[in-house]
This record gives sequence, structure tokens and C-alpha cells, in this order.
Amino acid sequence: MLNSELGASYEDKTQTSKRLFHKATKVFAGGINHNIRFFKPYPFFSKWAKGKNLCDVDDNEYTDYWMGHWSLILGHSPRTVVNALSQQLRNGTLYGTANHISLELGELIQKLMPGAENLRFSSTGSEATMYAVRLARAKSNKRVIAKIIGGWHGFNTTLMQSVNYPFNKQEGAGLVAEEEQFVESLPFNDLDSSIKILESAIDDLAGIILEPILGGAGCITPDLGYIKGLQEFAQKNDILLILDEIVTGFRLSIGGASQKYNLKPDLFTLGKIVGGGMPIGIVCGKKEVMSLADPVLIKENQARCNIGGGTYSCNPMSMAAGLATINYLNKNMDEIYQKINDLGAKARAGLAKIFKEAKIDVQVTGEGSLFLTHFLNNKVRSISNAADVAMSDLGLLHRYHLGLITLHQIFFLPLKMGAISSVHTEGDITHLLEATRLLVNSGILSSEKDS
Amino acid sequence: MLNSELGASYEDKTQTSKRLFHKATKVFAGGINHNIRFFKPYPFFSKWAKGKNLCDVDDNEYTDYWMGHWSLILGHSPRTVVNALSQQLRNGTLYGTANHISLELGELIQKLMPGAENLRFSSTGSEATMYAVRLARAKSNKRVIAKIIGGWHGFNTTLMQSVNYPFNKQEGAGLVAEEEQFVESLPFNDLDSSIKILESAIDDLAGIILEPILGGAGCITPDLGYIKGLQEFAQKNDILLILDEIVTGFRLSIGGASQKYNLKPDLFTLGKIVGGGMPIGIVCGKKEVMSLADPVLIKENQARCNIGGGTYSCNPMSMAAGLATINYLNKNMDEIYQKINDLGAKARAGLAKIFKEAKIDVQVTGEGSLFLTHFLNNKVRSISNAADVAMSDLGLLHRYHLGLITLHQIFFLPLKMGAISSVHTEGDITHLLEATRLLVNSGILSSEKDS
Repeated sequence: MLNSELGASYEDKTQTSKRLFHKATKVFAGGINHNIRFFKPYPFFSKWAKGKNLCDVDDNEYTDYWMGHWSLILGHSPRTVVNALSQQLRNGTLYGTANHISLELGELIQKLMPGAENLRFSSTGSEATMYAVRLARAKSNKRVIAKIIGGWHGFNTTLMQSVNYPFNKQEGAGLVAEEEQFVESLPFNDLDSSIKILESAIDDLAGIILEPILGGAGCITPDLGYIKGLQEFAQKNDILLILDEIVTGFRLSIGGASQKYNLKPDLFTLGKIVGGGMPIGIVCGKKEVMSLADPVLIKENQARCNIGGGTYSCNPMSMAAGLATINYLNKNMDEIYQKINDLGAKARAGLAKIFKEAKIDVQVTGEGSLFLTHFLNNKVRSISNAADVAMSDLGLLHRYHLGLITLHQIFFLPLKMGAISSVHTEGDITHLLEATRLLVNSGILSSEKDS
Repeated sequence: MLNSELGASYEDKTQTSKRLFHKATKVFAGGINHNIRFFKPYPFFSKWAKGKNLCDVDDNEYTDYWMGHWSLILGHSPRTVVNALSQQLRNGTLYGTANHISLELGELIQKLMPGAENLRFSSTGSEATMYAVRLARAKSNKRVIAKIIGGWHGFNTTLMQSVNYPFNKQEGAGLVAEEEQFVESLPFNDLDSSIKILESAIDDLAGIILEPILGGAGCITPDLGYIKGLQEFAQKNDILLILDEIVTGFRLSIGGASQKYNLKPDLFTLGKIVGGGMPIGIVCGKKEVMSLADPVLIKENQARCNIGGGTYSCNPMSMAAGLATINYLNKNMDEIYQKINDLGAKARAGLAKIFKEAKIDVQVTGEGSLFLTHFLNNKVRSISNAADVAMSDLGLLHRYHLGLITLHQIFFLPLKMGAISSVHTEGDITHLLEATRLLVNSGILSSEKDS
């Protein structure tokens, strides 16, 4: 099957989505509400999701590995979350006041992630990382934040740098060069180069922010020495280490990457899983840093680090869904993490084997329940940072993911990593492997095909 | 009753909240998740909310005029929203994909607010205004954004300027002076001074952002000539007018302030009401501007204006709650706006009369269903901008609001304006007026008392 035939087959199966997408282009810029959600020829429209399944408006049911931007570790609409939200719904969706559910969730997070000496709820991850940067600058009274090349911390203006290839160019129109002078970018997994860049900025260096696993940039795992090296540098030079655990928090373990890798960040951010499918972002960390934001302690507006908050912060729906999810994870942690990590390992090993046998040059990256397949080529022989992913054969990856969607009812958001939830089964992974084998055998993943 | 007695009486009635707040100070910086939600001696914790009522953990039931940061125009948990969310909950809370509910809501907004030629959903108002600024800079290829002194557009870094008195000082630690050089601040309702400031920045002026009614700064209504004058200046000089309708959208009329005042902004932002009590932000506007964000049309990352989006953008829960709310408003608009505006007028007139008779120098500001009482003094004789509010007797306003909470079971977030919903009644306003009269008669609102 040629790529053009694959596209036609997708269109055949998604006629209602095609019509809706055409309408959507007259309402939304590009027809979508998040750039990464567009894929060629057009994205399908979802109608319902339950457990591991996502169903589009043409009644195609997919096994979902996108799982709400990797948020839904218990699958779509797990009973515990549905029950909690059903009850909360009748008790109000938005108090705009303090509430005891947020206190319960906050205390539970403190217990499971002892680094969260203090925390504040916001409504999105973009907000949480923005506040973390603000806190680091307030604490250090310095300005420069170092981030990772390809690192993704949401759409906030400060950290919208070196996200997409070519990484040294501005991330699009409307950003002001003068606002970008206080961000430095580090090559992931290259400690020597990173330390050199940090040292060159040391006089004005406030902190380093990084995802322990590069998520949006392509599911790239860290050399542990790299993160430890950055942590050591931060400690030695009295700059703040901010760990962005929005993806890895409650994913790599109940204590996130901090627990798994034994890291001690000054600040860290949470989101996704901790909201149980509802909007959330959290900035957490040392009390001595977080207390800079305390409006009771620091009465003068100028002296305080003013972080949000917002209309929806600690709204009872997000709190109830998050609390139900984290309570469930806490009670069933051994079983759940064992299961999803085993399925992840099985997926990575199985995929690697299939491609190797077919002599298609692939590297399957990931850890625990996260994984992504990279198609290598003459330009890149292995994946250890975002530049490697940018150089890999993304056309082939798109074709692979579109093939899974169209021919095998398996949904990865094209180009993005997959996340296994507690409701995925061994049979699902077997199906994924079998589907991959069939796609490989069909010849569709040979790079000689039209693209 | 002295102010200290009032505080003691509040503490008597809110013993459980007192205990929870003490615990909360060990979890959250300042014990709260949004600075404005703290009030002295400590904020109560909410347990449930239904219709016009908010109930705290000590079973005190309040008539609520805070109404979820003024979001809940149909009251807490209206049946139409509860039904829509109950159904959606079982169909999934977070697809992470395109969905037809967002398309329906988007098309409905386009119909009711024709200026929304194109739009994009985000998850908070702070995000929406941040994206509006980015779009204005991209469109104009200029950098300076003018905002109003006291204007509040959320916690995003760019617009965190001249929000709090003293307005010419930095809004707290952790903000970088160099990032602030491209914002100019204008005195509300002073057209001559504002035009002078705009003219001085004209070479690099991208746009003007303003709330039609200053909300967080104190419910300050515009001289219509002021907004029209800014609009005329923007049109004449080819700079963008951004109307922040997060509070006024679907509040002042079904078409917001744009419709009521006949304004033609290039961009505008929505939030609050349009989310039906669930997290939302929207940036809307002219197609020629919004299309700069179109990733299908503009393939090159650097050429595009990259706006969000985010994990939760157009999530089906927010979309379902918003759609139910706006559909209900659309079907019942004559009745609802007539009712809430009449109640607002009755409240403003009644409050002004009571204070006048008591010879307490007060100005009740607001329009439609929004209102706030300002206590004047020797420093300020009338309220027309944020500096006037900052100079007014805020201690007395706090005492008035705490008195309503403690002695009359009426909740305004202390210092903040109130919003009337469709479930408030004539009897509620009568109760508010009667309670105010009793507070006045008690002598608690005489500025000679201890504070």
C-alpha cells in the first residue's frame, strides 16, 4: 500500500470527521485548538472515550495510547473519578474560595512526594512552569533560566524557546527577542557542553528547568549521570533546580522521577495525572522558596513573588478528580506500576524486535509506561536528544502512526509518544505488536515509498 | 460593635474553617491558592454550593455574590449544566483530540459575537490574554502593548504590570525589568493623558488591551467616550484593539460589552461565563489576525504565531458546560438580562440611598449585574479609575463585607465586586439592603472605629 492509498483509506473511514474538520477550519485557526493535534490529512473528531478506548464520530473505536496527553493513567472515565465528579458536580463546580478537597489533595501530595514542602495549585502546566521560573528568579534575585533544547514546558512566553527545530531560531512571530535574552538552552544528555553553557551564564543564573524524560520532544530518557550532574552543579553554585514532572509525576512511580532517580529539586511542577482528567497544574517545592509567594507573610506587593492562582485554581472538580485518582494510585500502587511498566517493557522490546527482523532501522525509546518508535536514517544513528529526533525520519513515523490508526484501530497522536494506562492489557500490547508486524510486512514503512 | 468584636464573631461562627486554614498554611503558601482569596482574619472553607447559595464547613449558608469569580451567571450547578456534565463525564473528560462539542460552542459564539470571526480555546483567562498579546505583536511586527492602570488580565508575565498600587512599581519579585519595557500603562477614563502616552510610544506600538469595565480593580465603568476614543486612535494608527471581555462577555449582554457599547475590537478574550463553571479561556477576533496562528496555512514554525492550546484546551467537560450555559442564555436572554440588570440597578440605587441617608460617603459603581460599594474619604471624592479605588477606605470596605458575611450570611469576596445571577431574587436584594441598613445603624461602618 502506498502512502497516498493510506491517506485515502483514512478518509474513507472518517467521512464525518472530514466534514466536521472542514467546518472547524472556519471557526478555529487551522481547524484545531492545539497545534500538535493537527495531523495529515486531517484529525478525526472524538465522540466518546471509555477505559482504553477512544471512539470517533464515524464510530471507529481505537485503542488509545495518547490518553489525554498522557494524563489518564487509569484510562478514560474510571469509576472512581466518575463517582467523585458526579457527586462534586451537585455540590458545585466552582466555589472561588478555599475548600477542604484541595487541602486533602495537597496533604496527600506532600505525603507521596516529600519534596513538596509547600505547593500551589494553578489550572494548567503552562501556568505552573511560569510560576516556577518566577519563584526561581525571586529566590535567587538573578534572571537567567537554563532549559533543555527541545524541552517543552507549555506555551508561556518565557519558556517558548528552543522547543522546535531549528532550535536556535525564535519560536514564531509575536515573541519579543528582548524577552528571550534571559534563557539559555542546554543539549540534553551532554553534561560537558551543558556545564560549559551554565558556567558562562553563572553570574546571572537563577535556575535550571528540565523534564526528567523529554516528553513532547520525543520520549527521550536521561542518562542518569546527566541529571545528577546538573543537580550537583545547581547545588554547588546555589542555583535552583526545577524538575518539570508534569508528565513523569505519578507516572514513573508514585513519587515521580524524583523518587525513581533519587533527585532533590528545589522546585517541581505537576499536572496531567494529578488532575485525574481535569485541568490542573501545581508548583511545589521547598518552603523557603514557596514562602516567597505567601501574601500573609509578605504583605508588601513588591516584595512578594506574585504567582497564581486564577479563577479556576483549586476548583473542586479538578480537586475531586485528582484526589480520587491519587488515592486510587496510592492504594494500588504496587499492582499498577508493576503492570504498566511491564507492558511498557514488553511493547518496547517487541517493537524493537519486529523492526530489527525486518531490517528497518528503528530505536524504541522510553521508560516505564512511556514509549515511542524513532525511524533512524543516515543523518541520525541513535536518539539521545531533541536534535536527533528532529533529524530522524518523521515522515515514516507519521506513516506508521497513521497506519495504526487507519488499518488497526490503534491511536497514537501522530509523532507523539504513547502512554500505557492501568486498563490496557497484555492483549492490547500483543495487538499493537501484531499490527506493527502487519504494517512492516505491507511494505508501507519502507522509506523508499512516496511520502 | 467594634471591628475586633466583628472578627471574634466571625471566628466563633467558623471554627472548622479556622482549623482547616491553620492546616492549609502548612500546605499552601499563605494557606490559599489565589492571593485575593485570603481575607482577614482567615477565609472560610466551602463545603457545597447550589443555586445562589454557598455553604461553609461550619454549615453557614451564604447568599453568594462572588459566584465563582463572577463566572456563574446561572448560579451554582444549574440543572442544564449538571445534566450536560453528568452525561459528558461518562463519555470522557479529556479526549486530547478535536471534538464536535467545541465546534458547536465555537459556532454559537461566532453567531452571538460576530467579531469572533475565528477563535481558539485555551484553559484560562491568563492564557487567553497572553495569546492575544502575542497575536497583536505578530500582526503588527511591533512590541509595545498598552494596558490600563489597574487593569487585570491574569497572572501571565507580560501583563503583570501596573496592577496594584503603587502602580509604577514592579508587581513583585521574580519579574524581570527588561521584560517589562514593552508595556505602557494608561489612566482609565482619561483620554487626553492616554492618547499622549500612546502617541509617545506609537513607533513601536502593537496594541491596546483593556477591560471595558475594570473588574478586579474595583468595578469601574467606562466613560463611553474613553473607549471609543481609544478605538478611534487604534483604527487611525493601525494598531490593534484587544478587548478583554473575560468578565463582561455574556455578562453585559449576550454579545458582551462589544455589543452593548458597539465596539469593534480586532481581538477579544472570553472566559468565566462561557465555561459554565469549568476552566476556559478564549482568544477571538478578526480572521486576518487569528490566521497568523494557523499551523496548516503557515507551515514554518518561525513564521507562525504559536499560541496554545495545552493539554486541556477544548476538553469536552469545559465545552459541554459552556455550551449548555450559552444555549440557555441564548434561549432566555431577554428574560435573564432584564432580570439581572434590574436587580443590579435596584441594588446600586438602594445601597446608595442607605449610605446617603446615613451620611456615609459612598459611591456605588457598576453596570448591569455588577456592583461594588466604595467608601470615599478626604483623599478621593469619586471613583473613575484604579488610583481612586486604591485611595478609598478599603479598611471600611473590608469591614462592610466581613459584616455581611458574619452577621447577615451574605458573601462578597471582601474588597471585590458582586455579580448577580439569574437565580438571585428581588428578595435577595431586599435582604442585602436590609443587612446593609442594619450594619450602618450598628455604627460598624463609621470610619472612627478601630480597624
